[in-house]
Amino acid sequence: MDMLMFQLDKQNASPLYKQLYTAIKQAIIEGKISVDTKLPSKRKLADFLSISQTTVELAYGQLVAEGFIESRPRKGYYAQAIEELAYLDLPQEEAVIPEKIDYVFDFNPAQIDTSSFPFATWRKLAKDVIDETNGDILLSGHPQGEDMLRLEITRYLFQSRGVVCQPNQIVIGSGTEQLMPLLIRLLPNTFIFGFENPGYALTHSIFSHHDRKSLPIPIDEDGINVNELENSPVDVAYVTPSHQFPTGSVLSAARRAQLLNWANAKPERYIIEDDYDSEFRYTSRPIPALQSMDLSGRVIYISTFSKSLMPSLRIAYMVLPNTLVHEYNKTFLHYSSSVPRFDQQIVAHFMKEGHFSRHLNRMRKLYKKKLEKLTATLASFAPAVKISGEQAGMHVVLTIETMFSEKQLIALAKDAGIRVFGLHSYDIGKSESSSPRIVIGFGGMTEFQIEQGIHELMASWKISQNKKQFI
Amino acid sequence: MDMLMFQLDKQNASPLYKQLYTAIKQAIIEGKISVDTKLPSKRKLADFLSISQTTVELAYGQLVAEGFIESRPRKGYYAQAIEELAYLDLPQEEAVIPEKIDYVFDFNPAQIDTSSFPFATWRKLAKDVIDETNGDILLSGHPQGEDMLRLEITRYLFQSRGVVCQPNQIVIGSGTEQLMPLLIRLLPNTFIFGFENPGYALTHSIFSHHDRKSLPIPIDEDGINVNELENSPVDVAYVTPSHQFPTGSVLSAARRAQLLNWANAKPERYIIEDDYDSEFRYTSRPIPALQSMDLSGRVIYISTFSKSLMPSLRIAYMVLPNTLVHEYNKTFLHYSSSVPRFDQQIVAHFMKEGHFSRHLNRMRKLYKKKLEKLTATLASFAPAVKISGEQAGMHVVLTIETMFSEKQLIALAKDAGIRVFGLHSYDIGKSESSSPRIVIGFGGMTEFQIEQGIHELMASWKISQNKKQFI
Repeated sequence: MDMLMFQLDKQNASPLYKQLYTAIKQAIIEGKISVDTKLPSKRKLADFLSISQTTVELAYGQLVAEGFIESRPRKGYYAQAIEELAYLDLPQEEAVIPEKIDYVFDFNPAQIDTSSFPFATWRKLAKDVIDETNGDILLSGHPQGEDMLRLEITRYLFQSRGVVCQPNQIVIGSGTEQLMPLLIRLLPNTFIFGFENPGYALTHSIFSHHDRKSLPIPIDEDGINVNELENSPVDVAYVTPSHQFPTGSVLSAARRAQLLNWANAKPERYIIEDDYDSEFRYTSRPIPALQSMDLSGRVIYISTFSKSLMPSLRIAYMVLPNTLVHEYNKTFLHYSSSVPRFDQQIVAHFMKEGHFSRHLNRMRKLYKKKLEKLTATLASFAPAVKISGEQAGMHVVLTIETMFSEKQLIALAKDAGIRVFGLHSYDIGKSESSSPRIVIGFGGMTEFQIEQGIHELMASWKISQNKKQFI
Repeated sequence: MDMLMFQLDKQNASPLYKQLYTAIKQAIIEGKISVDTKLPSKRKLADFLSISQTTVELAYGQLVAEGFIESRPRKGYYAQAIEELAYLDLPQEEAVIPEKIDYVFDFNPAQIDTSSFPFATWRKLAKDVIDETNGDILLSGHPQGEDMLRLEITRYLFQSRGVVCQPNQIVIGSGTEQLMPLLIRLLPNTFIFGFENPGYALTHSIFSHHDRKSLPIPIDEDGINVNELENSPVDVAYVTPSHQFPTGSVLSAARRAQLLNWANAKPERYIIEDDYDSEFRYTSRPIPALQSMDLSGRVIYISTFSKSLMPSLRIAYMVLPNTLVHEYNKTFLHYSSSVPRFDQQIVAHFMKEGHFSRHLNRMRKLYKKKLEKLTATLASFAPAVKISGEQAGMHVVLTIETMFSEKQLIALAKDAGIRVFGLHSYDIGKSESSSPRIVIGFGGMTEFQIEQGIHELMASWKISQNKKQFI
């Protein structure tokens, strides 16, 4: 090959060497310059194209680096063997955009109150943590999470949940989604997992994504039915004892003892206690965690800051029994903690300086007031509407006496711009037989919105206020 | 039961109602109060114990809440049926504490330079993001990651890596550890994964943790051996084309084309391109990503901010081909992004305002100087020490002519307080036959430490400087 004919555009935003590089590369890929063809010398090509020799040098250098051409000492540059690329037509599928509806009233149980978050304190702590003198914070930290955060969690769990553990038993992760898979992999893959039904849809899908067998265990007003569990082949039971999701029932003391005895009856049975919103209990003192009654290392305690701080923080933690700590360190040798160290340190300071307990107290009062507004508003619609699960957390369950089905109620609400969730949507394999039950989250709404929203919701369902209002 | 005899201690830090609650609960658990026993009335017990009726009320309320006692209307309080807990002795296993050695010189390839991080800018951006007016940041964000961050990544990838994609193809996660499992679950579980050998130990363990078949594919100086891949039953090839880890080789253009053709030869083959440290290339312009040559949607591009910003940030991302985006949305319906929104927004602003490209330019120069110091220092130990993989990234590979084995070299270095890694430690199933090869990371060391460290390392290996020094 004597010369390369390329149109280079000096007005183009792309530098000349890049244009030249692209043109030659394209010519090689398309076979216009065939294998082992000698390219013009840098000087000749520069002269021919009226560009500087440096420009050609840069382009050739890049082509050599990528293997499109080869530099043979004292001979020059040669095009290299490139297989012709078999470009296939790409099926252009439409992206799936999740349905986005702007509801006027959103009773989503995952929402929290954002108006009372101590932004100023958080900002101050962030400022302290993001500092030159703390340079090591950029490097990888402890694979189980920051020492100081694990220490603070240990203290908090002991004082508020009765959980007795050491920082080395704690693993900090980005959420239940991220911790549960680690946990699953710690246990033999022949194990069968039992999950509450109705329950978190997420849990169920995590088990199936990991090709683990899982079985639904029914829930009643006292929590998980342990008799059913005893009659099942389940090895690991996933439970929400403090405030069952979504029914809101609290696992009774009798059931707690029965559940622990179930776990102790065979050598390798475990209970995963998900304590997701235990911070918010409105009647009397919080109930201690199941883990606090467990003396045999059968309970794996798991919780999150999603409700107590914010869902977007993505910090959760689990407390492993000592027997599993060893196994964990062996199995996840190469893993690092999935939570940014900046955020871990901010939370640790937030807890250590007492902001966390103050925040919880403030939020508990605030949510209690919202709950009172909700129950007071709903009272005027009794007996068509019955409320349950109101001892704790940020959602309640309504049982509705109506001619409409659960699905119809949700559709009617949606038409009125109100988002509510049907209990059956959390239900695996059950037909919709009993009275419709609706999950109502109140965390993200103001008292005014709650009152207004419930009135509009009832109107959409054609439920009118009871007579008491008029006496 | 007529009365409860308890010793309550008014000097005790624990409130009286809590002491009473604990004592009654203990008595029920231990069977000292048997099932269906009527408890004394609140007034009687208060009189008897000389405490206020409110104290008794609080204790009883808590016991009712937990199901230890039952309140029967107009009758009183009755102890409930509690199974006796079968407490087993907990095997007290010693916690595994990972070996912690304070090295004088740490040539760990995962380290970065922390002295030049723009803390002030980061702090300023954090301050802007952590703000009342940005209250929604507390709530769950887009499951694939913040819109604004995905947009900035799209722009960055196009400009610097030639990657063409839309923000809806990007999934932001906490790291390769967290994204790879999602990816694995998107693909049929019969698929066989091919990984580079030597390569990241992590990748290999992720495949086996997910019960996926995987096979090692050998690496030579041009990167992965695609002929070997073609002769294997592999469906998905995991590769590091820009800078193979750990050998440092760059996948040649011929191999790139061959690899893409391999993927196109069968309907459901994929390439996972891990572009982990492509930002740092010291000779000529960065080589475009393999993804930029792929017109058939076979390349899944994955990268991270671990090297370009900091390992502790825990932000990585993958670019899914359009065909997998749909599948992703369906499969991970219930998942949320695992990265805190605060951090995602800080990074997005950092990129948008041009800080990221400025930071990369600064760091590239800085690492280049470190690399030059390293190669200059090593030059004086040629030909006993040969250097390779020095075109890019933050580590090089040394081939050592010595009587010592690789293991012995590492042990000798360790005795001298120097941390280095043997290439064979990244190798699956190969015996240590060829000359010892040692991975030397330089990112986390100062130029002075590099020079000093290499001299001490060579002394520990009994390798002396060549004559050139004395001419």
